[in-house]
Formats: sequence, C-alpha cells, structure tokens
Amino acid sequence: MKNIPDIVIHRLPIYLRALDLMARAGQDITSSQELSDRLGISSAQIRKDLSHFGEFGKQGTGYDVEFLRQQLRRILHVDRVWDMALVGAGDLGRALAHYRGFKNRGFRIAAIFDVDPEKVGKELAGIHIEHVSTVPEALPKRGIRIGIIAVPTEAAQEVADLLVRGGVQAILNYAPIRLAVPEHVRVEYIDPVIALQSMTYYLGNEGGESKTAIQPNECSS
Amino acid sequence: MKNIPDIVIHRLPIYLRALDLMARAGQDITSSQELSDRLGISSAQIRKDLSHFGEFGKQGTGYDVEFLRQQLRRILHVDRVWDMALVGAGDLGRALAHYRGFKNRGFRIAAIFDVDPEKVGKELAGIHIEHVSTVPEALPKRGIRIGIIAVPTEAAQEVADLLVRGGVQAILNYAPIRLAVPEHVRVEYIDPVIALQSMTYYLGNEGGESKTAIQPNECSS
Repeated sequence: MKNIPDIVIHRLPIYLRALDLMARAGQDITSSQELSDRLGISSAQIRKDLSHFGEFGKQGTGYDVEFLRQQLRRILHVDRVWDMALVGAGDLGRALAHYRGFKNRGFRIAAIFDVDPEKVGKELAGIHIEHVSTVPEALPKRGIRIGIIAVPTEAAQEVADLLVRGGVQAILNYAPIRLAVPEHVRVEYIDPVIALQSMTYYLGNEGGESKTAIQPNECSS
Repeated sequence: MKNIPDIVIHRLPIYLRALDLMARAGQDITSSQELSDRLGISSAQIRKDLSHFGEFGKQGTGYDVEFLRQQLRRILHVDRVWDMALVGAGDLGRALAHYRGFKNRGFRIAAIFDVDPEKVGKELAGIHIEHVSTVPEALPKRGIRIGIIAVPTEAAQEVADLLVRGGVQAILNYAPIRLAVPEHVRVEYIDPVIALQSMTYYLGNEGGESKTAIQPNECSS
C-alpha cells in the first residue's frame, strides 16, 4: 500500500463519485469498462489503479458498486466526517458555506473566520463568524485539520500561515496564487482555468479573434 | 494528433500553469524532472504526454520554458481570449465575476445572466446583468461558446438546457449535480470534494470520529 503515485490517489475520488451516482440510481454492479465510458479513463488504467488496493472485482462479474464504494470511502478516509475551517466570509465564502455538495461525502464546514469587524460575530449558514486572528488557537482545540481559503489573493498567503500555525495539514485554496507551506501540509487548488483549458482543446480555434499570432508548429512530428 | 486520451489533455493545463509560474519567475529552462517534482506526475509520464504533440525538448538541454509555454497555449487554444457567459449572479457568481485568475490565461466573462428581477439590469464587475431567458438568442450573436453555471442545484439543468440552445459547446458547472447535455457539449465540474478527498487519503484516520464502522479489508493482497 506504500508509495502509490499521487496521480492514482487523485483518480480515486473520481471513481468514488461515479460509484456514488450509480448507488443513488440503484445500480448494483459495474465494470471497469462502464467506468471507463463514463469517465474517459481507460478501463486498463482503472483496473490498474484499483489493483493497488486489493482485488475488488471478480473475474467476469464486474464490481459490486456498494462494496467498491465502501472500500474507496475507507481508503480515502471519508467513511467519517471531517470538520473544516473556512476562512473568508465574502461572496465565495458565503457560497461555500451554503454548498450542498459536501453532504454525505465526508466533509462539513465547522468554523468560519473573517477579518472584517462587520462580519465577525454574525452568523453564516448557522455558524458564528470568528476573527481570523483566532485561527491558530481555535483549530487545535476543535481538532480541525483542514482549511479552506476563500479570501482575496493578497491575503491568501497570510491566511495559509495562520492555518499552518493552527495545525492544519490540508488546505483547499481558491485564491489564484501558489502558496508556500511546510512540506507536511498538502495544498489543492480550485482553479477553474484548468478545467476550461481542457475544454478549449476540443473547441478548436474557429470563431474567435486570436490575441497573439499563432506560431507555426515547428515541432510537429 | 488524433485520439489523444482525454486524461492526457487534462494534464496539459497543469503543465501550462507550472510553465506560466516559471516564466513569471524569469526561469528560461526546465526539465521533465523539475516539472515532475513540482506536480507529482512522473517525468516519464510528462515526456510521454508532451510527445503526442511533437518534440519539445532537446536531448540533454531540457525544455525552453517560453517555447513550450507558447506551444501548450496554442495546443489548448488559449493563445486567444474566449468570451464566457456566466449564469448566476448570486454569491458564487459575484465571486467569479471578480475572479482574477482568468486574466492572461485565455478567458474573460463577457456576459452575465440571472433570473432575479432585482439583479437584472444592474451591473456586476462592470457587466450589465441580463435575464436568463435571453441566453439562447444572446449567445450566438456574440459568438459566446462557453458557459459557466453558478446557480442553485435545482436550476442547473434548466440553465444547461438554455446554454445548449444558445449554442454553447463547453460548460463549467459549479452545481453539485450531473448535467444531461447532448454529446457535442463538454461539461467540466468544479467539485471541491474531489480535491478534499485526495488530501484526506494522506491525512489518515487518526483524530476523528468514525461515522460508519470501518470494514476489514477483506481484499488486501
């Protein structure tokens, strides 16, 4: 189970989401081929990824949706609920506080922080907004190990530092800036441009003004 | 250049983002090993991915950051600016309208739609908010082919239908719901749980209450 490539780990939640949808639709059995068709990942890759963790399918009968789902939840440690600290109660913070996609998937926003005296003390989605300066002492007390950064770009690094002082080991960062954190802290970035760019590949170049000259492909093989 | 796996295409924007950061830091040359260290993707995988599109590195000298960057921008068709329609001027829509991460990466919000009569006619980030019912006629006129869905879950499918009628070919969906769209329309989901779950894998199970009994790993090999 050691040294499984990070890129494999990043695909497991995608498999889990597909299985969640199948389970909700009442589907009992699936196959690497069906997952492949849904997800655009080759069936060989899916079987190889899952084989790192055991033998989940029986030859010729496919995967038991509920069993594989429970195994993935266990492997990803989301067979529990993780409390998260949200920093930033602006537009994005409010959207996240009300986000319904966390439910039943292992996460809950348990604390909200902001720097604005107008916001501190008020409630957001039923949670009392606290001052961001209290992050380092508040988090360890409550066993919070995950932070979400939803503040303006300029403040993101400072907030990351506070979260790290508060013992956070995982940060979900919405600000378009690369954070500097100690090695033991993981950071994932929510970057809509990554998703957009993988679609424009398929849209092609027609029908739009080119801002920069298109270079000849000097390297096409 | 045909039939390049979707999963390869999805990694190109990640390479481009790393190159953007290197270029901004004034770095001229990089290597598949350096990209690997930064991104947690094996250097062999990076070389293989890039080799689908040509020969970008010279043996022993690595990659020219600016050249590779321009090639990836061209391949992903972001050597231009794509106008996007944002639907939803609520908390999330406001955050996206002010998002600074689109700049210089190929995208711009050019139109904003909402259903709320209180919002329609007002301005958001300098853009006039229009009624969502006008989406199907407004988009083709302005050559907009990308839509962003930032509405409540219940309204997301209806908005997707309007965007499709407006000729949109790529949808970025923030609502936690799987959209049904015609085959020629691509959808990418912004799902923070996918990112969170790939971090909890590493956080392990300590220090938290388990909501469901942890099943014995019947399958460990």
